[in-house]
Amino acid sequence: MADIPIPKNRLNLPETIWWDEGELFLLDQTQLPLAVVGERQDTIEQVSDSIKALKVRGAPAIGVAGAYGLLVGIKNDRQLPVGDFMARVESQAAWLGEARPTAVNLKWGLKRMVEFAKAQTAASSRELYDLLVEEAIRIHDEDRELCRMVGVHGAELIKPGNGVLTHCNAGSLATSEFGTATSPMYVAHQNKVPFKVYADETRPLLQGARLTSWELQQAGIDVTLITDNMAAHLMSQGLIDIVITGTDRTAANGDVANKIGTMGVAILAKHFGIPFYVALPYSTIDFDMPDGKGIPIEERDPEEVTHFGMRRTAPENIQVLSPAFDVTPNELVAGLITERGIIRPPFKENLLREYATKGA
Amino acid sequence: MADIPIPKNRLNLPETIWWDEGELFLLDQTQLPLAVVGERQDTIEQVSDSIKALKVRGAPAIGVAGAYGLLVGIKNDRQLPVGDFMARVESQAAWLGEARPTAVNLKWGLKRMVEFAKAQTAASSRELYDLLVEEAIRIHDEDRELCRMVGVHGAELIKPGNGVLTHCNAGSLATSEFGTATSPMYVAHQNKVPFKVYADETRPLLQGARLTSWELQQAGIDVTLITDNMAAHLMSQGLIDIVITGTDRTAANGDVANKIGTMGVAILAKHFGIPFYVALPYSTIDFDMPDGKGIPIEERDPEEVTHFGMRRTAPENIQVLSPAFDVTPNELVAGLITERGIIRPPFKENLLREYATKGA
Repeated sequence: MADIPIPKNRLNLPETIWWDEGELFLLDQTQLPLAVVGERQDTIEQVSDSIKALKVRGAPAIGVAGAYGLLVGIKNDRQLPVGDFMARVESQAAWLGEARPTAVNLKWGLKRMVEFAKAQTAASSRELYDLLVEEAIRIHDEDRELCRMVGVHGAELIKPGNGVLTHCNAGSLATSEFGTATSPMYVAHQNKVPFKVYADETRPLLQGARLTSWELQQAGIDVTLITDNMAAHLMSQGLIDIVITGTDRTAANGDVANKIGTMGVAILAKHFGIPFYVALPYSTIDFDMPDGKGIPIEERDPEEVTHFGMRRTAPENIQVLSPAFDVTPNELVAGLITERGIIRPPFKENLLREYATKGA
Repeated sequence: MADIPIPKNRLNLPETIWWDEGELFLLDQTQLPLAVVGERQDTIEQVSDSIKALKVRGAPAIGVAGAYGLLVGIKNDRQLPVGDFMARVESQAAWLGEARPTAVNLKWGLKRMVEFAKAQTAASSRELYDLLVEEAIRIHDEDRELCRMVGVHGAELIKPGNGVLTHCNAGSLATSEFGTATSPMYVAHQNKVPFKVYADETRPLLQGARLTSWELQQAGIDVTLITDNMAAHLMSQGLIDIVITGTDRTAANGDVANKIGTMGVAILAKHFGIPFYVALPYSTIDFDMPDGKGIPIEERDPEEVTHFGMRRTAPENIQVLSPAFDVTPNELVAGLITERGIIRPPFKENLLREYATKGA
């Protein structure tokens, strides 16, 4: 498996997910930055495990991986009658949707595939499968374009000489090509705006150290790595002008669920008068969730906190809390940068208006 | 060296520093919690290296180690005439004082030894050395007692059922016996008050994961380890009622220099209306430093951020910032818990009054 060639995207970064000759491949992000390794996904169980193990991660990427992953889960059922095949599409989608509870995009991508399948009048399961392949590729292509558009709208926020703080990885590796939080950075960099990025390392799984700092460095952007607890000091020194993060799910009132630590950064930004922005595909907004209180917070394995890499760094039998996400209240958010433009407070009203005019 | 027996203190925890038969020993804290290992200090250079490498760390412990370390640096000069010996005392103290720039206690302990030496009228260098040994032991004993008194005053702040957050290790391992930030916890625990402690792991060097959670666990206190970036989430969930940290140096206006990340915790506490206390020996207050702006912030090796244990976790050649401390402005501090009692705002006035009545 070690020699799988990895295609490059338009930013000259490795693709995170690709569909090639009827097979799904993922970049194994757990091995970055030490090794750049692709892995073929042979079963839906493997896809689910890859999602759980964060080999593929980031809300939009999980949505795309879910759509392709469903194909992996049904490709051997193409001999079934259409009705049975359709039942299989639904049950496999429901099963894969449970891989991670907080990310709304996984269920979104799977729901779109299921509804697309229902709307078809295919003569055979084989034909329906081929149409579903086209739909998954469309989801992927749309994600590429909307990520780029997030950056087109968000780039105006980054002024020459700015310091930009980001948390976790809502980058190219988390999405398709431009990322979400990173997309304004990539577009500003393409526009030759000079700026600095500070990347929180993002304990426990170090997405900032391993992924964000790596992909920005690869793309030639001036990036400096810090530990999570240095952000306040940098802000106090005037090094940070704007914070941009991603989100795994945003409620209808603008409350933002994202990687643990995001709320802390937002509170610090408010304290220092620094605007805190969230970049996201419009699909990440969960209009069925009135506010952030209802968003389930995944609790992760304690070993992610007690170990670093393979090495134990805490006492045996120590008690641990390990929430994977927190919910940043909407009053801390300066704006939601979407592919449709920047949505400003009051979010409840402005998101409802957006919903009314353009749908979910 | 692996079989050096380590004496226990009154909390039944390993001593961090001990003077035995004319020799100085340190617990090598860099090996905790995986191994409990003592190390004899044969030269002043070794003591300086041990301080730099954080084998001994924590402001009060460094002060004690400095006093004993000076003895190590002059013990082979006892054959010199008293005047030459005294010059050697001063030069060795000045040299050892440079091991860490931020900690005021190191210079404080050394200055006390030098001034004590100057005040003696010893007939021989040998006699003066013996008097200095007694003075170092006195500094150590006084540190034990004042740490315990910090806890006696601070314990009243911990109510039954409270959640107490602490950052870094201002514990038994950082001081003599009761610690500073941990002393109210140890005293409350001795008083059979039930409470929970949440320990920030404290990147980059994980003093919370390796040391605080270990020593509290050893002492039978209910302690839960979290990553630094989880504190805001715990506060939002109502799990934290009080924050207590230590300090490496506190300015005359109550600005608090402490381990990087402390200011962030203080800002979060303010946001959630949680009182933020700092526990410290009175000697940690630097009356020559009018406010925190003048406190030098040590910049540590970038590898502490890019590596975890021996393992690289960040890209090659990534830019890094690694400030070891930050300065929490006095308006975020609810009180300074000292061996003399709890000093409340306004700090500038109340610290001046304390200084005027009782001296530095």
